[in-house]
Amino acid sequence: MSTVKLWTDAEAEADPRVKAVFDDIRATRKSDFVNNVWRALANQPDTLERIWAGLKEIMVKPGALDPLTREMIYIAVSTANSCSYCIHSHTAAARAKGMTEGQHADLLAVIAMASQTNALVSALQLPVDPQFLVER
Amino acid sequence: MSTVKLWTDAEAEADPRVKAVFDDIRATRKSDFVNNVWRALANQPDTLERIWAGLKEIMVKPGALDPLTREMIYIAVSTANSCSYCIHSHTAAARAKGMTEGQHADLLAVIAMASQTNALVSALQLPVDPQFLVER
Amino acid sequence: MSTVKLWTDAEAEADPRVKAVFDDIRATRKSDFVNNVWRALANQPDTLERIWAGLKEIMVKPGALDPLTREMIYIAVSTANSCSYCIHSHTAAARAKGMTEGQHADLLAVIAMASQTNALVSALQLPVDPQFLVER
Amino acid sequence: MSTVKLWTDAEAEADPRVKAVFDDIRATRKSDFVNNVWRALANQPDTLERIWAGLKEIMVKPGALDPLTREMIYIAVSTANSCSYCIHSHTAAARAKGMTEGQHADLLAVIAMASQTNALVSALQLPVDPQFLVER
Amino acid sequence: MSTVKLWTDAEAEADPRVKAVFDDIRATRKSDFVNNVWRALANQPDTLERIWAGLKEIMVKPGALDPLTREMIYIAVSTANSCSYCIHSHTAAARAKGMTEGQHADLLAVIAMASQTNALVSALQLPVDPQFLVER
Amino acid sequence: MSTVKLWTDAEAEADPRVKAVFDDIRATRKSDFVNNVWRALANQPDTLERIWAGLKEIMVKPGALDPLTREMIYIAVSTANSCSYCIHSHTAAARAKGMTEGQHADLLAVIAMASQTNALVSALQLPVDPQFLVER
Repeated sequence: MSTVKLWTDAEAEADPRVKAVFDDIRATRKSDFVNNVWRALANQPDTLERIWAGLKEIMVKPGALDPLTREMIYIAVSTANSCSYCIHSHTAAARAKGMTEGQHADLLAVIAMASQTNALVSALQLPVDPQFLVER
Repeated sequence: MSTVKLWTDAEAEADPRVKAVFDDIRATRKSDFVNNVWRALANQPDTLERIWAGLKEIMVKPGALDPLTREMIYIAVSTANSCSYCIHSHTAAARAKGMTEGQHADLLAVIAMASQTNALVSALQLPVDPQFLVER
Repeated sequence: MSTVKLWTDAEAEADPRVKAVFDDIRATRKSDFVNNVWRALANQPDTLERIWAGLKEIMVKPGALDPLTREMIYIAVSTANSCSYCIHSHTAAARAKGMTEGQHADLLAVIAMASQTNALVSALQLPVDPQFLVER
Repeated sequence: MSTVKLWTDAEAEADPRVKAVFDDIRATRKSDFVNNVWRALANQPDTLERIWAGLKEIMVKPGALDPLTREMIYIAVSTANSCSYCIHSHTAAARAKGMTEGQHADLLAVIAMASQTNALVSALQLPVDPQFLVER
Repeated sequence: MSTVKLWTDAEAEADPRVKAVFDDIRATRKSDFVNNVWRALANQPDTLERIWAGLKEIMVKPGALDPLTREMIYIAVSTANSCSYCIHSHTAAARAKGMTEGQHADLLAVIAMASQTNALVSALQLPVDPQFLVER
Repeated sequence: MSTVKLWTDAEAEADPRVKAVFDDIRATRKSDFVNNVWRALANQPDTLERIWAGLKEIMVKPGALDPLTREMIYIAVSTANSCSYCIHSHTAAARAKGMTEGQHADLLAVIAMASQTNALVSALQLPVDPQFLVER
């Protein structure tokens, strides 16, 4: 159970600011499904609007990285941060955007290897090689 | 300064197990440069061999993800884990594999957005939507 | 289910050291409710006594920060550490101490923004500006 | 040394988007000092604009929490995330907003206590008490 | 519910690579029980083989640390990383290897104290004393 | 440079509460060396006294775990939390208590393996096997 109320569709419909965001989520995603993070943020309309605007800008708008790569990066960060909800939602999103089982396997292998060497390097307290510090 | 000795080339040359790994790193990367993480792991030859074998398997061998995507996932995990050395070395590696400034900008924007929503979702303690839990 | 037994009131009543701490928790909080963290720590009486003494000193005793501000800082740390139980218990405690929905919204917005810029700064590996390093 | 170029004032002056943000930072803070995070984000103008707009909204605009409380929450998150630059910059900001040595001491004591109980609770894998799960 | 399918014994039996690992797990542990992590990794046979080989090398093979000490270190890392499944499985493993309640209490006390001073030191941004930096 | 002043011996000598803790540190450790964490906490005498008392209780007093095992657990937590100062100081302390290079190698291998499987398990979102949830 969440630390805040999750808004129903009826409650969202009755609040113009929340309704506007929910309508845009549905139109952008071409789906009637509005997941729990938005139903929770509905309690905090400033945050609801800012987060949705940011997510649309960063995850939906065409950019230098394709949408599936962005989802896999999102999964990597969410995994390192142990965010259960985020791992579930973005793994589902990545699959909806075409992530194959082979890509999922490679993604997890890279996440696991990075976590392992991050820990080793942390314990070793390595100085950065000067070769990595090229002035740009 | 690291918590263990960093091996010089002369020291590595004198130890058959370490020499074998250093030789393979140089041959695989087609470069004479052996960075500090290997010079530190030389103190622990079992770990040196296992980590290099794993890294070669996961980061070098052809797979379902292209090498640059793997490097960007590595950067994402290393950033979430605050591993300074890892961020420097894998950002350099990603650039060597062709990462453009636009891709770097997108990578950082996704990492930042994921970190933000991970924290929000953590504070909200959201239940996972059943739609994300499809039995596979 | 926890990794240790959760003590019932009857079990706590039968152990003088545990009883003394549970009695003090009830007297300090003016409530009969003893939550699960204490029922788990009852297995480790040294830790039970030390943690309760520390918590009383830091969260209950008058100090330079008011009790609600301390609870919000506790929520911020618990969120960054993904401690589900802690987020639930301290969000409830903050509300019991008067946290409004507006304050909760602001708290979450700051936590989210900090998490986002922490990640960006980590990826950018910024040197600290000398202006921040004033000798005190 | 950072993973991207830090823009000088002259470089910022020559780029209209970067100049606009730097000008607004200086006007908002009533200070000529523009710290390194903005000089690094100047390489990524979309992110520069979005992060500055978000920070202004959340940290500068009047809200339910006073500015010093927000800075202390920012320090708490940055500490849990081990973000060295962020800890330095927001500790300096909190002092500039009037944080006393006594408040700093209390802030650190709460952060330390929360980190300690977060770890204990994590190791104990406690179920959330039903009393904390009141439907709102 | 996991993000991938958990393989049944029948499914594992039908796949030679998965069967070989499951057989070795059972033989090594002298138990018919194969826990969920292996049933999940069965979807990714390269990772299944590599992780099991690594775990056998590091946690099972005789070495400089006794098996119980290794399990307690595993619990410490898993606790700091908030890995619920890992805390449960390695606490069970440590008990199976003879961890007493007194050792568990001490383990948790050290983890808690380390987490507390890690946070304090992070907030204080301490320079490392030169005495700790002896060249090895 | 730290976020607070580091007290010199002369300053500590002039403050009775700080002097008492520094004297006890020196007597307990049978060494004149007082490291930076205590010189920083001297600004916050309540915290100085509480942390030193806790550390003495948990790391110095005889208990169910031997002193070297406790130091290695401390290193494991500090590594997972990326606490540079803590990794340096407790690696030095572990060596002073007799940690061999072989034990250090095993410690790092376990930390690395645990970090790797923690990440995999996080990405897989595994349900805890009922066998691990035995009521105690």
